[in-house]
Amino acid sequence: MNYRMILYIIGKMLGVEGIVLLLPALVALIYREPSGIWFLVVSAVLGLLFFLTGKTVPKNRTIYGKEGFAVVGFGWILWSLFGALPFTLSGSIPSYVDAFFETVSGFTTTGSTILTDIEALPKGMLFWRSLTHWIGGMGVLVFVMMIANLEKKSSMFLMRAEVPGPEADKLVPKARDTARLLYLMYFALTALEVVFLLFGGMNFYDALTHAFSTAGTGGFSNRNQSVAYYDSAYIDGVITVFMILFGINFNMYFLLLRKEWKSALKNEEVRAYLLIIAGSIAVITLNTLSIYKNVLHAFRYSSFQVASIITTTGFYTADYNMWPELSKTILLFVMFVGACAGSTGGGIKVSRLLILFKSIRQEITRITHPKAVTLVRVNGKTVGKETLRSVYIYFICYILVLAGSVLLVSINNFDFATSFSAVLTTLNNVGPGISLVGPVENFSQFSVLSKLVFCADMLLGRLEIFPYLLLLSPELWRRKF
Amino acid sequence: MNYRMILYIIGKMLGVEGIVLLLPALVALIYREPSGIWFLVVSAVLGLLFFLTGKTVPKNRTIYGKEGFAVVGFGWILWSLFGALPFTLSGSIPSYVDAFFETVSGFTTTGSTILTDIEALPKGMLFWRSLTHWIGGMGVLVFVMMIANLEKKSSMFLMRAEVPGPEADKLVPKARDTARLLYLMYFALTALEVVFLLFGGMNFYDALTHAFSTAGTGGFSNRNQSVAYYDSAYIDGVITVFMILFGINFNMYFLLLRKEWKSALKNEEVRAYLLIIAGSIAVITLNTLSIYKNVLHAFRYSSFQVASIITTTGFYTADYNMWPELSKTILLFVMFVGACAGSTGGGIKVSRLLILFKSIRQEITRITHPKAVTLVRVNGKTVGKETLRSVYIYFICYILVLAGSVLLVSINNFDFATSFSAVLTTLNNVGPGISLVGPVENFSQFSVLSKLVFCADMLLGRLEIFPYLLLLSPELWRRKF
Repeated sequence: MNYRMILYIIGKMLGVEGIVLLLPALVALIYREPSGIWFLVVSAVLGLLFFLTGKTVPKNRTIYGKEGFAVVGFGWILWSLFGALPFTLSGSIPSYVDAFFETVSGFTTTGSTILTDIEALPKGMLFWRSLTHWIGGMGVLVFVMMIANLEKKSSMFLMRAEVPGPEADKLVPKARDTARLLYLMYFALTALEVVFLLFGGMNFYDALTHAFSTAGTGGFSNRNQSVAYYDSAYIDGVITVFMILFGINFNMYFLLLRKEWKSALKNEEVRAYLLIIAGSIAVITLNTLSIYKNVLHAFRYSSFQVASIITTTGFYTADYNMWPELSKTILLFVMFVGACAGSTGGGIKVSRLLILFKSIRQEITRITHPKAVTLVRVNGKTVGKETLRSVYIYFICYILVLAGSVLLVSINNFDFATSFSAVLTTLNNVGPGISLVGPVENFSQFSVLSKLVFCADMLLGRLEIFPYLLLLSPELWRRKF
Repeated sequence: MNYRMILYIIGKMLGVEGIVLLLPALVALIYREPSGIWFLVVSAVLGLLFFLTGKTVPKNRTIYGKEGFAVVGFGWILWSLFGALPFTLSGSIPSYVDAFFETVSGFTTTGSTILTDIEALPKGMLFWRSLTHWIGGMGVLVFVMMIANLEKKSSMFLMRAEVPGPEADKLVPKARDTARLLYLMYFALTALEVVFLLFGGMNFYDALTHAFSTAGTGGFSNRNQSVAYYDSAYIDGVITVFMILFGINFNMYFLLLRKEWKSALKNEEVRAYLLIIAGSIAVITLNTLSIYKNVLHAFRYSSFQVASIITTTGFYTADYNMWPELSKTILLFVMFVGACAGSTGGGIKVSRLLILFKSIRQEITRITHPKAVTLVRVNGKTVGKETLRSVYIYFICYILVLAGSVLLVSINNFDFATSFSAVLTTLNNVGPGISLVGPVENFSQFSVLSKLVFCADMLLGRLEIFPYLLLLSPELWRRKF
């Protein structure tokens, strides 16, 4: 392991966070909030750490996959540890564990909260909370790469460790340019949403924070009632559409920009994703008709909620805890499905599920025609053996992490639906679950152990397990490289 | 597909069921129950069907894997359809769907029941109910092979399709001899349990039915209160030990008979299985101490329940629905783990989980040392690529069936813990779940749709999914072979 290089990159990461913290400080200044001073204090500490570690370039600058995973694994934890400080120092979130939970939930774009009265927090703090979503959506390291100078080769390994889904490789060759281009599109889409929200009568501050949360598919709102606060079909509609857009593989937008309509339209993952959304909305609309009495109402609330959950955003306009069990189970189901690979959304990812389904079909063919050569194809391309195996192993790890976490959280003695959905929602970076972690509830009632399990699940979910699996493996530390 | 041969073997299967039905008829005769006549009626119908289809040997007697799966898939359904008739014809279970559920639950050794008052049924009917467990435990086809003459090659494919776990091949070469030897050991262990139970003061009838249910790891009891009825630490202990014994890979007993102590002791699966049992008992004993006030009591009830659930038997001596959430979640967890491959128990199987865990470790090594050659080894033997892939695909199918079934059952609008654990318990052939399908509850309150989903899950779980996956695949039917 090239420890010096790991330290150097992490130093840069902390420096970038120091710069980022100036933004909420500015917001606090605008609203004349004294609590804003703490952003500057933490920013100064981070600046100091950057000068201590990230200034001098190490001689040996080569890093490989394992260093990439180590940087990403530690980097995200450190960003969260420092990012949580302003909340606690200012007294907005007195418990540091709670503040850490909230910040991890922010950066991992989960959106689960321990706050019982969100609106009681200063505007600077709530801005920082939503900003963590926006940065976390694209990836902390992608953000760092855009701002700081990193070697091409290093960037590749860092990006591979951070960008979700089995498809990162394609975008990687010119990692830094890609990072900029990605952020440009991300920025443009976010700005577009802000404009649309302003037209709906939202004030600029609210429009900005909600656009940040939508873009990162996070789900933090600065309103206690989330998007239900505005009670506007227009705003619901805008956010529904943008959530769905941010859940689509960003490659699609590349293709659309290059006017490659045909390959864009043929994308199997996006088609499956839209199909699942349409199907879920249809069933839930029918299923909730008895509650809303009106097809349009039922459609409005169910489409918002399906979009919010499948993209793993986590906003709400209705307390779906009151919906029939079928609707709730469909929501849990799409929670587990998640968005497209290469989007800001979480979950298993539609493309992985496509690969899994096709693998099952391949296995059937193998049994019925033992001599036939069978391949798994997605978007007309053969999926390689390595990718197949890594998708299988990922899925297996995911289920085992899910089961293990539910076991640990059950020590807290909440009912099964609460424990299970709390783990599912954090592991998939969604936000709310069902029962006692339903949309109008929060995570404050859990024990410290459970909260730490959720933090671990959020990080495992966002970084797709492997970085932390590697860090926990004695192999990485035992031997010399 | 060799349809004639499939029909021929299924004809033999039905004939064997006709013979088997004479046993409960005899029991009914002993207790002078007029309802026993229905066993004879169904037996006669089956005899007739046997003469129509299973008498003349087809010219082309070669069958392959796909025919094996078809025979097993259809055979189990037909056995259940006919096996359910005496219940409904005699009026013991008026609804045929309920009777079918009960019989599928019997043959698949699940032990979930729709009966609200078990003791109201005639003794002949309850004997038949427990006997289905005993036959289903070893496998309907293994039983048929023992009685009827089948070609060696056919037997191999049939056995491969029916015997659970990734290890069937070893026992297969002399399928018929193996079937006999297996049944001999199975018979001997069952007889031993009967003797032990008689010493505990059980009457012969109860001892027989409980031994049948233990041996098949089924869980039907002829008592409304299951094993709790006897309220005897001795009987609890005997059944606990025998449940654990029947959950062990039968290869172990082969090895012990051949005095190969060393390889027997080294068996990783059995060691992991016993370790999981010991760990679960320890945690649940501590966790339920607040309820039982006494370590010995807590140990007695928790060891019985852990053994009952991990071996997927499903007897109970305590209403674990009242236990703390951690204990309940551990029970759900071991439900999912299941027993050893090659035992009568269900679930994912310990050996599969071992392979999955080792695959994850292998993947980590692959990432940290990309050039190293890594292999997955169990019991000192390398697990082949084909086996690995089939274990991965099995696990994926299992989780998808689980998720899909929960979705369908949720239409019934029961709480999540009920729907989830009802699917989990049927898919793993355990019996009871938690919440509204807890040990002292039953499955009668579900809709017909849900009951049919459970029947499908029980069959899918017992036959390990692939036979039915193949039967559903259009590929098998579309093309000519």
